[in-house]
Amino acid sequence: MPQKVRIALDAMGGDHGATVVVPGAAESLVRHPDSEFILFGDSSVIEPVLRRHPRLAEAARVVHTDVAVKMDEKPSQALRHGRWKSSIWLALDAVRKGEADVAVSAGNTGALMAMAKFNLKTIEGIERPAIAAIWPTLRGESVVLDVGASIGADAEHLCDLAAMGSAMARVLFDIERPTVGLLNIGVEEVKGLDEVRKAGQILREQPVPYLEYYGFVEGDDIGKGTVDVVVTEGFAGNIALKTAEGTARQISGYLRGAMGRTWKARLGYWLAREAFRALREKMDPARSNGGVFLGLNGIVIKSHGGADVEGFAAAVDLGYDMARYELMAKIRQALARGRDQTSAVVAVGGAAL
Amino acid sequence: MPQKVRIALDAMGGDHGATVVVPGAAESLVRHPDSEFILFGDSSVIEPVLRRHPRLAEAARVVHTDVAVKMDEKPSQALRHGRWKSSIWLALDAVRKGEADVAVSAGNTGALMAMAKFNLKTIEGIERPAIAAIWPTLRGESVVLDVGASIGADAEHLCDLAAMGSAMARVLFDIERPTVGLLNIGVEEVKGLDEVRKAGQILREQPVPYLEYYGFVEGDDIGKGTVDVVVTEGFAGNIALKTAEGTARQISGYLRGAMGRTWKARLGYWLAREAFRALREKMDPARSNGGVFLGLNGIVIKSHGGADVEGFAAAVDLGYDMARYELMAKIRQALARGRDQTSAVVAVGGAAL
Repeated sequence: MPQKVRIALDAMGGDHGATVVVPGAAESLVRHPDSEFILFGDSSVIEPVLRRHPRLAEAARVVHTDVAVKMDEKPSQALRHGRWKSSIWLALDAVRKGEADVAVSAGNTGALMAMAKFNLKTIEGIERPAIAAIWPTLRGESVVLDVGASIGADAEHLCDLAAMGSAMARVLFDIERPTVGLLNIGVEEVKGLDEVRKAGQILREQPVPYLEYYGFVEGDDIGKGTVDVVVTEGFAGNIALKTAEGTARQISGYLRGAMGRTWKARLGYWLAREAFRALREKMDPARSNGGVFLGLNGIVIKSHGGADVEGFAAAVDLGYDMARYELMAKIRQALARGRDQTSAVVAVGGAAL
Repeated sequence: MPQKVRIALDAMGGDHGATVVVPGAAESLVRHPDSEFILFGDSSVIEPVLRRHPRLAEAARVVHTDVAVKMDEKPSQALRHGRWKSSIWLALDAVRKGEADVAVSAGNTGALMAMAKFNLKTIEGIERPAIAAIWPTLRGESVVLDVGASIGADAEHLCDLAAMGSAMARVLFDIERPTVGLLNIGVEEVKGLDEVRKAGQILREQPVPYLEYYGFVEGDDIGKGTVDVVVTEGFAGNIALKTAEGTARQISGYLRGAMGRTWKARLGYWLAREAFRALREKMDPARSNGGVFLGLNGIVIKSHGGADVEGFAAAVDLGYDMARYELMAKIRQALARGRDQTSAVVAVGGAAL
């Protein structure tokens, strides 16, 4: 990797476009002065904002395009009118051409994923990409994947998710052998879990040096932080993510209601306001903003569309880390080892059945 | 239905057995004096506890059995040694024989479900039973099903779940046409959701008088209370339920931590302690304790194994309501209408494709 981390930004993405993307990049640059940026989008919108961030202006260049994908466009629509020329496409294209090490967009998830698949293509041997989320837990953070890129998974895809997720956890948490759990449900002898079971068998029997297989975990293990990496197919993963977000908002709502009801509670709230601020920060999605697209020939970070400056900066930080600490190399390493041995185990398993 | 609601209790189930089941029943009896109980289990354990609850003793009879299913037994094991004679089995058998209107157990979920299927059998036309949870929301409560009885669902099974869930919501919330949403994920044009889409089409096109089809909902809609009934297959449903429980515990953990850190926060906590108590109550699973097994020829309530007296009483209350307001009749009504029209729509849909 070159000495600088080169970050391609879709400056038009998200609910706020350049007014959040540019200051967000500036904030991240303060933390990582060895970053360089390419900003894709309408230069007449970007340039005025960029002028207010002279330090970023020095580390960035703007590539103009008129075309931007709307937040509510369907992936097929977005592909039709935005391929080759939209700000999302050009940011991805910079990664494909080796001009950038990572692309970051707060644009529409479906369009970003469709274009990323089309432009970057999946890694050889990986059929479908995945979206990995960083999930705050009682122990710190965990990687949870797939949170919605594709639905359903056979044992081999689950093992690929385990390999890619552990590579990401190595980068993110700086640990040698992240623990990996397969998301499952507790009731025993329920039919239909064959693929999850088979994946468990493969992960148990194959000694991958960068992955510590923990076993099955249940939904409540995610928040506990039982493992560093939680693996599941995209439907259940997305439901889990959204349900947790909903529950957090629900409890915030209860809390606000409860704390405003009597003068004692209001005074108590005022006295404990610092503690509540700390709590809000812990529950704040901005702090761990960004999903990572895994399984493509390049690193793509998806920021929340509604992210504020701080949130978008967190997504840029995430992109920086993934590039700086060589996520792609670690993924290839994990998959190369995984794949040889997976085939062996599947063959043996097949013979034994 | 006879004038009294006759409730069969597995007095050995749960982590605490009769010491929780008996006082729990006594508490529920105070609220519903028109209840009658049959307590199944070891009479040498039940009788001494029952003597401390004279009012319950008058409304209850004890049926002795030595056999109890352990909390960690696998369903197949439990069936082998507990069929015909365990306290779970006998409670279910009382429902089958028409001696009780509902069975309540805090016993092991897998064993209870296996025995319920074996003993009560599924309603004609329903292939697999479901477990429905009562989920606290910002608007009150919703019914969420299936939370883990079976994995995967075709469109017809999802429609059956919608019908049964809305019947339960009618009983529980006393509304004529509960709103029903199908749990889905937001990213558009993701492949693999054919059955959910097809179910949506059927529910839209069939005017069931007791069900208002809302459309798709996502994970965060559950906590919002967007609909009265959330329908999904058992794997995603169980993951959602456990993830929400985990998130609630996680936030409680953060809150406890934050409130103990400084003297101001501690004082604030003390002043606002009533508010926190109210919050804890809202988040307390005991308040809405109990899953309902749907799709069987009889009503079965599953209480949390770890429920305390108040929690078990809530499960008994739930059983009372389901029997008193004729859940079974409402389910049959919903299914009978649903089924005729489902077949028609499927046939038309098939011809149109």
